[in-house]
Amino acid sequence: MPAPPVSVVGLGQLGGSLAAALAAAGRPVSGWDVDPAARDAAEDAGVAIRRELTGVVVLAVPLPAMATALDGLRIDPGATVTDLGSVKAPVLAELGAAHGDRYVGGHPMCGTERSGHTAVDPTLFAGARWALCLEADTDLRRWLRVAEIALAVGAEVVPVTAAEHDDAVAAISAVPHLLAAAVAAAAGQAGPLALSLAAGSFRDATRVIGSDPAFVTALVTGNAGPAATALDRVRAQLERPWPELVADGHAVRVADAGRRTVRVPLDRAALLALGRAGGAVTRRLAAFVEGWVPDRP
Amino acid sequence: MPAPPVSVVGLGQLGGSLAAALAAAGRPVSGWDVDPAARDAAEDAGVAIRRELTGVVVLAVPLPAMATALDGLRIDPGATVTDLGSVKAPVLAELGAAHGDRYVGGHPMCGTERSGHTAVDPTLFAGARWALCLEADTDLRRWLRVAEIALAVGAEVVPVTAAEHDDAVAAISAVPHLLAAAVAAAAGQAGPLALSLAAGSFRDATRVIGSDPAFVTALVTGNAGPAATALDRVRAQLERPWPELVADGHAVRVADAGRRTVRVPLDRAALLALGRAGGAVTRRLAAFVEGWVPDRP
Repeated sequence: MPAPPVSVVGLGQLGGSLAAALAAAGRPVSGWDVDPAARDAAEDAGVAIRRELTGVVVLAVPLPAMATALDGLRIDPGATVTDLGSVKAPVLAELGAAHGDRYVGGHPMCGTERSGHTAVDPTLFAGARWALCLEADTDLRRWLRVAEIALAVGAEVVPVTAAEHDDAVAAISAVPHLLAAAVAAAAGQAGPLALSLAAGSFRDATRVIGSDPAFVTALVTGNAGPAATALDRVRAQLERPWPELVADGHAVRVADAGRRTVRVPLDRAALLALGRAGGAVTRRLAAFVEGWVPDRP
Repeated sequence: MPAPPVSVVGLGQLGGSLAAALAAAGRPVSGWDVDPAARDAAEDAGVAIRRELTGVVVLAVPLPAMATALDGLRIDPGATVTDLGSVKAPVLAELGAAHGDRYVGGHPMCGTERSGHTAVDPTLFAGARWALCLEADTDLRRWLRVAEIALAVGAEVVPVTAAEHDDAVAAISAVPHLLAAAVAAAAGQAGPLALSLAAGSFRDATRVIGSDPAFVTALVTGNAGPAATALDRVRAQLERPWPELVADGHAVRVADAGRRTVRVPLDRAALLALGRAGGAVTRRLAAFVEGWVPDRP
């Protein structure tokens, strides 16, 4: 079966990088953006510019624009729709209602503090994990079509449910952003002397709060329930004796379990079990996928 | 007045770098370390190896070794004694009792996760802040002698009291280490899926807890009172509405107040005021020091 065409809506850092990477790989890809400069940049990277969307349609727009991203565009009624949004349950509610089982939610775990078409990088996805939602009613064939696009640009696919994704991302993204903000704000309270002495550990700990506050606020408020739960886990950790806390945190940070290769049948439960074990899919074969899991959980 | 000789005890990353930097600057410097390999490395960098300590004696040993670092060495009874320890009130209590007003506490805000004589770098101090304690009974002439050594290796000197130093460092070092541990430990609780999705923000937020846990534990428990107070400030920040917290944290992280040059008389109150304003000393002149303060506090 030939690779389906891909239509990317939104040609900023993520969408532009995806379209450019697919074009570089010789895959059929078109793109659209409301910004003519983004369209021109994509065209220069070998991406056809079209308002007609077909094959796999990738919504690569900010979360608030997700519901209206297709306005004024023509979409093939058989197209598969996916997105690259950083939170999944709210997008599933919205796009699942609009597109039914043609929608497959996704979230590539990459991107930098830069944004827009000037930050496009066709190698952005190489080696990144790409969470891909497999709900009870997801069409597995459509899920595989989207997975193949992620694999084609060098990512590893992590099968998840939207709820599992949002819980995990709260712990490893929302919470670090909130704590970076709290460390910086508290150091500001401590005064100019503290800030003038600030060196490497403060700079590392607060780096992510250097991002656009509107982006960070959307990230944490858009995933508010799971983020509050994850923050409570951090609060509980801070009640432990410090030597214990330091030892445990260090062990998690430096853990390197090793990996072993596995073959997983094309079955929702088996694929989700791979994701829950901390593994990822690296290759599609005829009747199964190949991937890896950590040696120790 | 010629520059006084400097005797560095402990030739690991900080002490070895200081001795090598002074040797490179043509200043009279000797060193000692219990480890023959560290002595050999320093000798190769042009540092004389001697057990007789004179001029300004720099204790560049881990905190637990501070009290016994001079055992078996001969120290000139007129020598000025300083240290490079990361906490100041406990060291002041110990070394102040031993050396009286000949002791001046110091803490250069640099160093990396590496340690030992193989991590020596003569440029380590260039542009770094070097906190230097000015207590009520500190001999200002001795303080200036130590300050000149810090300036000679490219650091900027921040006049502080030991208590002010420890409060400030709690906010910008102990707290980031504790929160990094808590974020990592909580992500570990969240499970393998969360860790497998972890990308840039998690790695930045937890980088410092990749350091040796014994070092981190000493850092936080050695400054326990101020660290607990600073941690309470972070907890209070986390109770604020998230958009407010994000906006404030971002503002502190990206603040760049600009600087203006100032001249400060050789007077304890004036020097401490410079440090409290977030400024630093950059040059010794005859009857005053030159430095800078942020344009806005």
